[in-house]
Amino acid sequence: MPTIQFLDPADPTAAPQSRSFTTGSRLADVAEAVRADTNGSCQPIAALLAGKLVGLDSLVPEEGEPTVELLQAGDPRALPVMRHSAAHVMARAVLRLFEDVELAFGPTVGDGFYYDMRAKRPITEEDLPVIEAEMRKIIAEDEAFERVEVERDRAVEIVRDLNQPLKVEHIETGLAEHPTLSFYRQGEFVDLCRGPHIPSPGCIGGFKLTSLAGAYWKGDANNAQLQRLYGTAWFTQEDLDRHLEALEEARKRDHRVLGKQLDLFTISPLVGSGLVLWMPKGATLRSVLEGFVREELTARGYEPVYTPHIGKVDLYKISGHYPYYADSQFKPIEMHEDEQYLLKPMNCPHHTMIYKARPRSYRELPLRLAEFGTVYRYEQSGELGGMTRVRGFTQDDAHIFCTPEQVEQEVAGCIDFTLKVLESLAFDSYRVRLGFRDKASDKYVGPPERWDEAEAAIEKVAREMNLPGCEPEPGEAAFYGPKIDFVINDSLGREWQLGTVQLDYNLPSAERFDLEYIGADNARHKPVMIHRAPLGSMERFIGVLIEHFAGAFPLWLAPEQVRVIPVSAKSEAYARTVEAAFQAAGLRTGLDLDAEKLGAKIRNAQLELVPMMVVCGPRDEAAGTVSLRDRLDGDLGAMSLEEAVARLKDENARRAVRHKPKPLGLGGTKQAAAADDY
Amino acid sequence: MPTIQFLDPADPTAAPQSRSFTTGSRLADVAEAVRADTNGSCQPIAALLAGKLVGLDSLVPEEGEPTVELLQAGDPRALPVMRHSAAHVMARAVLRLFEDVELAFGPTVGDGFYYDMRAKRPITEEDLPVIEAEMRKIIAEDEAFERVEVERDRAVEIVRDLNQPLKVEHIETGLAEHPTLSFYRQGEFVDLCRGPHIPSPGCIGGFKLTSLAGAYWKGDANNAQLQRLYGTAWFTQEDLDRHLEALEEARKRDHRVLGKQLDLFTISPLVGSGLVLWMPKGATLRSVLEGFVREELTARGYEPVYTPHIGKVDLYKISGHYPYYADSQFKPIEMHEDEQYLLKPMNCPHHTMIYKARPRSYRELPLRLAEFGTVYRYEQSGELGGMTRVRGFTQDDAHIFCTPEQVEQEVAGCIDFTLKVLESLAFDSYRVRLGFRDKASDKYVGPPERWDEAEAAIEKVAREMNLPGCEPEPGEAAFYGPKIDFVINDSLGREWQLGTVQLDYNLPSAERFDLEYIGADNARHKPVMIHRAPLGSMERFIGVLIEHFAGAFPLWLAPEQVRVIPVSAKSEAYARTVEAAFQAAGLRTGLDLDAEKLGAKIRNAQLELVPMMVVCGPRDEAAGTVSLRDRLDGDLGAMSLEEAVARLKDENARRAVRHKPKPLGLGGTKQAAAADDY
Repeated sequence: MPTIQFLDPADPTAAPQSRSFTTGSRLADVAEAVRADTNGSCQPIAALLAGKLVGLDSLVPEEGEPTVELLQAGDPRALPVMRHSAAHVMARAVLRLFEDVELAFGPTVGDGFYYDMRAKRPITEEDLPVIEAEMRKIIAEDEAFERVEVERDRAVEIVRDLNQPLKVEHIETGLAEHPTLSFYRQGEFVDLCRGPHIPSPGCIGGFKLTSLAGAYWKGDANNAQLQRLYGTAWFTQEDLDRHLEALEEARKRDHRVLGKQLDLFTISPLVGSGLVLWMPKGATLRSVLEGFVREELTARGYEPVYTPHIGKVDLYKISGHYPYYADSQFKPIEMHEDEQYLLKPMNCPHHTMIYKARPRSYRELPLRLAEFGTVYRYEQSGELGGMTRVRGFTQDDAHIFCTPEQVEQEVAGCIDFTLKVLESLAFDSYRVRLGFRDKASDKYVGPPERWDEAEAAIEKVAREMNLPGCEPEPGEAAFYGPKIDFVINDSLGREWQLGTVQLDYNLPSAERFDLEYIGADNARHKPVMIHRAPLGSMERFIGVLIEHFAGAFPLWLAPEQVRVIPVSAKSEAYARTVEAAFQAAGLRTGLDLDAEKLGAKIRNAQLELVPMMVVCGPRDEAAGTVSLRDRLDGDLGAMSLEEAVARLKDENARRAVRHKPKPLGLGGTKQAAAADDY
Repeated sequence: MPTIQFLDPADPTAAPQSRSFTTGSRLADVAEAVRADTNGSCQPIAALLAGKLVGLDSLVPEEGEPTVELLQAGDPRALPVMRHSAAHVMARAVLRLFEDVELAFGPTVGDGFYYDMRAKRPITEEDLPVIEAEMRKIIAEDEAFERVEVERDRAVEIVRDLNQPLKVEHIETGLAEHPTLSFYRQGEFVDLCRGPHIPSPGCIGGFKLTSLAGAYWKGDANNAQLQRLYGTAWFTQEDLDRHLEALEEARKRDHRVLGKQLDLFTISPLVGSGLVLWMPKGATLRSVLEGFVREELTARGYEPVYTPHIGKVDLYKISGHYPYYADSQFKPIEMHEDEQYLLKPMNCPHHTMIYKARPRSYRELPLRLAEFGTVYRYEQSGELGGMTRVRGFTQDDAHIFCTPEQVEQEVAGCIDFTLKVLESLAFDSYRVRLGFRDKASDKYVGPPERWDEAEAAIEKVAREMNLPGCEPEPGEAAFYGPKIDFVINDSLGREWQLGTVQLDYNLPSAERFDLEYIGADNARHKPVMIHRAPLGSMERFIGVLIEHFAGAFPLWLAPEQVRVIPVSAKSEAYARTVEAAFQAAGLRTGLDLDAEKLGAKIRNAQLELVPMMVVCGPRDEAAGTVSLRDRLDGDLGAMSLEEAVARLKDENARRAVRHKPKPLGLGGTKQAAAADDY
């Protein structure tokens, strides 16, 4: 006799309750019982079965099968099911409003859903409110979604009767292996669909059709062109409002928008797509960040190197990168038949040449070679965007050559470095992924024992340092060794893979660059190589940083740190003295001598996101004082010029982040399982 | 009646004396008279006629022709004539010693001469002393050089009789335009030669055959292969010895030798010829130098930018660089037919894209965009060498966009910047070249009036700043504008063109990038662009710097500035404290904990050219002192640790050069005119 567990909705932290049902019962029966038990306060709409989302039309599992957890309306884990039902509601509304509509696919995606379709008269932006109104009617009617399972042949008949030629084609080609297929019916609307669905759409508390885009049938540009209607749906209007607000904020924070607005970077079609030109303000930000990293590198015993941006193709043949990465590389520069150069897609082969330039002794190890190395990869043009997907990027790269005994200590050092960087930039929320090998695959270089050892070493270090996450992810290793990736959450709640630490047993090997050192025993040994980059790439990192801070950088990072504003033309000379004092303290200082009123000048500085203003007038001049004004906290009062300079100089030197970005909580719901059409 | 002037050899600073001769007299007659007058103490061997070197077999010029200046043995201006005679002496010696010798060309070059020839039995290094011995005999015999002039046909007969087929070919092809030709005879040796020569070889006080190399007839690899015998000759044995010593010093200072020895840079065939890999110590030196330049850039109102190392070929078509520089560029990267990228051979087109990224106002000008921009040019492989001739180099580049009115002030600023750099690096000897247009050529862009204005402007600024040199050199301008080049003398006396300031009216023009700014009058105007680089290229500059300082850099530049040396193992702990104190002061500090004796450790530091040693023992530990030891000045005595740190910190911050490189005076003699064969 199947037993089902559910949480008391009045006290979801209490132990789950159990109840037994007769064989053949459906989860809807269980839901009905729960509803009755709770006097309707708990309204289950879906369930989780071994981590998989299922509908209430599923059978109650037999004894011995995994426990079922009922999900009620409002549970974020049920969102994908509800959103897929919202996609059906949207399609039904369109079919009611438009003639000759052919439906394609309509899955959930991120925080919403879409449906691809083709109507005789194309849908326009102006139609969206009309469709929304029709959807609201359908939701109010609250008709049930019913599942129907039929044989394949019958399914073809049904979609043909429904005048859905794309669905006919899909059943005949894409779904040829399925003996039976399911449909979901809601009133007059019948759609080929794997499910699951919510029992009825009444629990859709807030939704919005967000955009209209072009798409191709099955994503192939040779196929029919379709229209894609995007929407988002939530259990309450408040959730929807919060989401739309966060979206609007994200749109404003888009680093492509802010990058232009704040004069940080530009991309020129004459130079090429994905090739970032850093404008003075962006370049200043980058060089401050590079200076910070350089300071840490020196303190941590790294040594600088510089290497060229090209290398002979042979270098990459030996390293094994060529032609492995052929699809994502720029084509070689062909000077002569036996003289071809590649724009370097990574810095490691060049650094091994520096290691190999002369014999090495164990006394020199660990040798830590660091370079801000600009590398080039040919991302497909559809994938390019601002600074986060580019064709040329500068890695804050370093390669550590060490003895096998030094690996743990060096990995710990790399992690510590990355944590220092994240902390200094107010990235407080992050997790760590341990990229291990897939033991079933043979793509990995080197003996399994060494892999076991290396994986154990990095897991040990990561756990000893109490890093969040740390779950080993099999199959996520590079082919040359296991790795640690830092996945950070920005203030919009989105995840970014930034820093990385990777072990490499491949490049030093005899088949590759055959690196060696003479040990204390006077014998030859192979060093281990560690690739590491705390920021990853300057372009991507700064792209994320712009959105994280919404362009309002803390004092130490701001391109213009201080703006001196005289209250009137009378104080211009004093303002110049004040400017010189801040500049002499190494602060990037601007001076606003425009003829505008004080209020307007302050407003301009605020809009340009200058973190600190220094207001000075005739009385200040007489007293040798200034008034500091924080962009967010407002007036900090008058103080002596020396004190003001000392205060900001100290804040700058400490790399303080006084105003941490407020988390906005935008981010794709973690989808427990697909809730989708076939 | 011709009048000749000559200096009193007893008092060469006195006013020149004059003497008249009958028409038809030769300079030899004048020389004889001078010899007699001076009782043989003045022995003229050549003369200068309107800046051109001539032999004593020349006629005394007629009245109204330029004054002749007699040159006596020992006068450096007569060296080329003497060296050409030495080449004849060498050829004569070879003909005496070897069978079937065919002579080709035998000119003077730098501090010596060479002769290309082909002997039946090839000449080897071992033969050189034998040839030298024969030359000594010929010099001792001191037979006169006699000039003979003959008709072309007779000249062919003579060289045919002499069994000199290469000379036959040369007269018949290369000298086809000459109706008469001259020979010089010395005893049995007769050679086709334009001259001039010294009267007889007795004044050759010291000579040496320096090397043997391969060469092709007329420099063409398709022609016969020849041997080239190099020699040097001086008026005294002392001059020769000094020269050979300087040569030996230069050989030791060769930056390719020191670069390897001091671990500064390496070149790997797998990366490619002419592509420098900066090892940690060289990279440290470079980054210190870049830091210095960056500090100056900030203080002088430059703003940083970063740009990619490639650009679409179209960018260079618009700039006009492509296909103008096709021979010296790497080939394009061809992704698609209409998508080709070029490794950037210069940074200017990228910087114009940053200027053009948004509308500009006169209030933003001068806009000074600075970048350490790495550029790539395909020098022919025969021209590559160490860091001074490379295929990839990093310019300390900047482009100033300014109004026409700002040009003078900006050029003055660029010059001042360059002078600051040269002074900080102890380059005390330099001159300035003004590269103007060749008014007869039509390769220059823009109206002549603008050129006149621009040339006048830079000459005015250069003269006002009292720069040495400043002679306008017509034809030396870039096609886009006039320029100022800084030509420095290194401590070996050699000249290097390093810094440059160039005006550019081309790139901003409507035909090129059509740059604009809105003036105070609200109308559109064209900015002037200034290209400038005080160092030129990091590779070339540092290559020269290595040789200038013979690798012994001043404290502020040295990769390892300070080495802490405990007198014994007992003081290791204190030595670590001392090391930490110097490191905390920002000094690049090494620590020698080897088990060697103090003397050996000091010797090692000296050999590795570490400028400052800090010796500390148990008594120092008790007293909190250390002993500073300068690599050149030796022991500076004991002082408190704080004082020692403060002293070096200050020396470092001031970028002091306490030991200026001593000039060695190696350098090609300025050749007043060619003294050569045809």
